[in-house]
Amino acid sequence: MDRLTDERVPEGLPAPELLPFQGAVADFRSGRDTPRDYLERAIDRLAVWEGRLHAFAAVGIEQARRAADASTERWRAGRPRSSIDGMPVGVKDVIDTADLPTELGLRAYAGRRPLVDAAAVLGLREAGAVVLGKTATTEFAMTHPAATRNPHDLERTPGGSSSGSAAAVGAGILPAALGTQAVGSVLRPASYCGAFGYKPTSGAINRGGSHDTQSHSVIGVIGASLPDLWHTAWEIVSRVGGDPGKRGLVGAPQLAPPSRPSVVVHLETDGWPLATDEARQQTEDLLHRLERAGVRVRRRQHDAEVAQLEEILAGALAKARSIINVESRWPLRAVQRIAPGSLSDTLAARLAAADQVSAEAYQELLDWRRSARRTFAAVMDRADAVVTLAATGAAPIGLTSTGNASPAVPSSVLGTPALTLPVLRDAGLPLGLQVMGARHRDAAVFGTARWLLAAAAGEEPATGSGPAPSAGGAN
Amino acid sequence: MDRLTDERVPEGLPAPELLPFQGAVADFRSGRDTPRDYLERAIDRLAVWEGRLHAFAAVGIEQARRAADASTERWRAGRPRSSIDGMPVGVKDVIDTADLPTELGLRAYAGRRPLVDAAAVLGLREAGAVVLGKTATTEFAMTHPAATRNPHDLERTPGGSSSGSAAAVGAGILPAALGTQAVGSVLRPASYCGAFGYKPTSGAINRGGSHDTQSHSVIGVIGASLPDLWHTAWEIVSRVGGDPGKRGLVGAPQLAPPSRPSVVVHLETDGWPLATDEARQQTEDLLHRLERAGVRVRRRQHDAEVAQLEEILAGALAKARSIINVESRWPLRAVQRIAPGSLSDTLAARLAAADQVSAEAYQELLDWRRSARRTFAAVMDRADAVVTLAATGAAPIGLTSTGNASPAVPSSVLGTPALTLPVLRDAGLPLGLQVMGARHRDAAVFGTARWLLAAAAGEEPATGSGPAPSAGGAN
Repeated sequence: MDRLTDERVPEGLPAPELLPFQGAVADFRSGRDTPRDYLERAIDRLAVWEGRLHAFAAVGIEQARRAADASTERWRAGRPRSSIDGMPVGVKDVIDTADLPTELGLRAYAGRRPLVDAAAVLGLREAGAVVLGKTATTEFAMTHPAATRNPHDLERTPGGSSSGSAAAVGAGILPAALGTQAVGSVLRPASYCGAFGYKPTSGAINRGGSHDTQSHSVIGVIGASLPDLWHTAWEIVSRVGGDPGKRGLVGAPQLAPPSRPSVVVHLETDGWPLATDEARQQTEDLLHRLERAGVRVRRRQHDAEVAQLEEILAGALAKARSIINVESRWPLRAVQRIAPGSLSDTLAARLAAADQVSAEAYQELLDWRRSARRTFAAVMDRADAVVTLAATGAAPIGLTSTGNASPAVPSSVLGTPALTLPVLRDAGLPLGLQVMGARHRDAAVFGTARWLLAAAAGEEPATGSGPAPSAGGAN
Repeated sequence: MDRLTDERVPEGLPAPELLPFQGAVADFRSGRDTPRDYLERAIDRLAVWEGRLHAFAAVGIEQARRAADASTERWRAGRPRSSIDGMPVGVKDVIDTADLPTELGLRAYAGRRPLVDAAAVLGLREAGAVVLGKTATTEFAMTHPAATRNPHDLERTPGGSSSGSAAAVGAGILPAALGTQAVGSVLRPASYCGAFGYKPTSGAINRGGSHDTQSHSVIGVIGASLPDLWHTAWEIVSRVGGDPGKRGLVGAPQLAPPSRPSVVVHLETDGWPLATDEARQQTEDLLHRLERAGVRVRRRQHDAEVAQLEEILAGALAKARSIINVESRWPLRAVQRIAPGSLSDTLAARLAAADQVSAEAYQELLDWRRSARRTFAAVMDRADAVVTLAATGAAPIGLTSTGNASPAVPSSVLGTPALTLPVLRDAGLPLGLQVMGARHRDAAVFGTARWLLAAAAGEEPATGSGPAPSAGGAN
């Protein structure tokens, strides 16, 4: 990825720079570096940024140091627990942590202390990761913004709802942070903040103790590289599984090797007409580059099946929001009961909107979602991946809106894996290329994304090569 | 149901007697009775029983009185919120309540106070029901018993895991209480305590804020009559829906009219060889009575499809436990983290057993469950209901085991609706007749159960009659 030299980063702040973790492991092994030293550098960057960035809802320096010291001991003894042992991580503040407050961006939850860790947090800790803090979320992971700013331009939104996770990773404070996505809450902020983002197949990561209980919501990862995303997700799931009754994340512990796609689908989504000229041009340029490399690109204009998919996904944002609204009546009405008037007007309006959706209308929305999933599966029978923008352009100016989620919402309702790669630019700022795949084919999407990442940088990697621990992120 | 005159009820305690709520509504409407007076009588019975019964984990007298007073005002003004406005209820202590502790029977959760009500509790409150207390549960709703005793014989288990709900309803303290069932935790204790029990189609009642997050677990109701069960469930679901992404309870607000089945399946389950002679004889007598009334009874001995269902359900208890164990690794490992050594040996052993189940073995268990559901659906294409014992006999003597769940587990893994009717006897104590139906056909199961209830009492009701508010319970 380009090193950023944007003038809008104010004086006194370093240029935001992704900081992949996977390269550190070799140094931990050799003893040149330790998890404790790695953590201290993260804390230093936190100290530089946080006063302007507001990425964190809570920080736990002392417990992080204790965890990093324990990790340091394990690496010294040659017995690390996992490929992410010693990795400092952030946890979106809708996911319970036993040692830090979990407030969900809700006024009524100020100071709330869960008794136990959520499943994903337990998985992180059992893998040896070091939880540095809780990252800021929009109110109840919906649209009313947090105070978080974009590290690439403090006057712009970081996106939402995983605002703090994206800002902290984008600024280079952390190599990875957990997010959640029910509409576009992992992919969009990752795109805006110049980070990698991973929204898994729905059900792939156990949501126990996470407050995103809506039916197609998932826990995802925002990180500094593709290996950081994969290893974080895989190490969690190998310890705590997927959602109850679902197949957890499928794949090998190692990141899939780069894999050249034969056929990709360009999905426009409702976001295409809303995208900036530059964003569209960047997408077209990339697609043409793929075609020159011999990749067949299926487009709605010449492919009835793709056109049908676009059609069934038309209006997906409003429909996804309706599903989410209905499925959020509880707990929001329960919150109103203990703290009347504590919800923002935005959230109160969404709760009121939910009451306009009848039980029959809700079932129709679920039927639509099932039908869209069938259509997508049919398209994917003859394609290796879907590529599309992760957002309509660079992060918009201002902090009152978290931006438009239209390009990111399809993977949510379809329950498919999706990645965003920070390889596009708009207005001198980061923009993500989204790569989607078939359900449960998360590992394959990573393989395709590794190839696309190199292709976007003008290289074509040898495909099928073994996993390279440091590949995919810093290049 | 017979009035009980069992000598084992110790002196000083009244004979346990079910106390249906639905008859009270007419008196509330006429002004002869009020919800506050109704509550005070429940509190009086609580005072008589609780010292010996230990059915409650927490009681909230003052807040219940305030809620009952508000309900009294609504009835006076002719504006009750629902058919259960003013009904005192108990809530199993694995379901969060904002105004009472929720401890899950876990030592590590002593004094835990949730911030907000669970969805089902919110639904109850919005319908005007009066939460009198939290009912005792086995540890984490599994097998390590609570201190609760059986109101029909204090030396016997009330069953589990919804021990307190069944004991409180069976003793006549409350007309209804919420339970949960992932193995046999609604049907078995209801059977042992002489109460009606309802285990809905999986997903029918929103489990938000309930800690039974396992994939086929459901919230159910233990009550004093069929109308009490139906109205409680229906009023909750009409306000808070089913589990996210699932169809909530399907049916009219009114209880279905009695409906004579043409064909019933007698499912033996693994419980049949374990059942007492008297329990089997009572079942056979009932089946013969049905046959004399012109109902066709399909049995494994002469029906290959039923035999196939019995076969696929063989070993269901161990398989269901394995699924539940895996799906309970979180939060149990998270509990161990904050309170090492706080789990009972029983629960620690189940957690250890979960670690022996590989991800592949877990997927095979889910495949088995799917396959069993298909087999059941095929059987139900040519049957109106399944009848079987709800337990292997009367509640066993002793408080160290909560009894055998083999007869109750099929409805859990099949995700089907099931009722238990207190119409059988064993050793002079209550025993339930279980009635199961096809998924989402909960209302029809109630209709069949109403007919069976009358048939078991030697009557044959006119079928297809309109719902009678006081029917089904006290007769």
